Amino acid sequence: MFDAAGEPGEGGFLAELLQRLRVASGTGEGEARGDFDLLAPYVLGRVRGRAMDAPDPDAFWRLEVFYAAVGAAIERRTGVPCQPMLRMFREGHGRLVLVAGRLVVSSRSVGDVRRFGFDSIGALADAGERLVAEGTELVLRYPDVAHHAP
Amino acid sequence: MFDAAGEPGEGGFLAELLQRLRVASGTGEGEARGDFDLLAPYVLGRVRGRAMDAPDPDAFWRLEVFYAAVGAAIERRTGVPCQPMLRMFREGHGRLVLVAGRLVVSSRSVGDVRRFGFDSIGALADAGERLVAEGTELVLRYPDVAHHAP
Repeated sequence: MFDAAGEPGEGGFLAELLQRLRVASGTGEGEARGDFDLLAPYVLGRVRGRAMDAPDPDAFWRLEVFYAAVGAAIERRTGVPCQPMLRMFREGHGRLVLVAGRLVVSSRSVGDVRRFGFDSIGALADAGERLVAEGTELVLRYPDVAHHAP
Repeated sequence: MFDAAGEPGEGGFLAELLQRLRVASGTGEGEARGDFDLLAPYVLGRVRGRAMDAPDPDAFWRLEVFYAAVGAAIERRTGVPCQPMLRMFREGHGRLVLVAGRLVVSSRSVGDVRRFGFDSIGALADAGERLVAEGTELVLRYPDVAHHAP
């Protein structure tokens, strides 16, 4: 979430997401390529502008990075490492689970991965933070399962 | 497990595995292609005879069918559907999880999927039944997690 100063808060979902996007794009903090540019591929205005009949090799990657950031924020709050697993059954369709120990902290069906996006950066941050909150709650509710050896 | 008569027991792991292999091979029960032939690709003598530098498109499939059979046997005992999810990180390496609701009932790292095999059909049956027993125990220990909506 962007805090009062309009900056992504320390250790939250958006900070984790930006960190991964920066690493992937090879840009450091404070470099020319701003946070908004890095997050733009998650915003639906851009998503809708995409040619939906064209394959998008980055679509899976964006989805996984989103869930990796959710997992990192859950780990920061609970100390339990989370690993995203994406399984595609046929082109663009599949299922994503975020696994902590023996607990699935998040699970979603993926209809068309190319349509994965949000109305705004605020909506992206809210969706991520909601998943972080839900996952954290599950880890705290089922600690034995989450700490179970994989 | 083969019972006293040397037949795979009703509803156990091996019966579930054979059912899937029969469907995939297009052979019915009692048809010419016997159970031993269907199970042979899981037996290490055959595995060791494979050219290990050649890609094996059936290797992932065999691993998934093995875990699908484990999951079906767990479902038969507990009533909870199980879904295998295989994630390959790079060629031949990855992780497989068997998910029931929000519970990971089985999880394994896959080193080289082409080497997935057993010393004998008995060892294959034992390994499958052990995973079924472990998974069933986990479902019974954490019923809330296993019955949690995905």
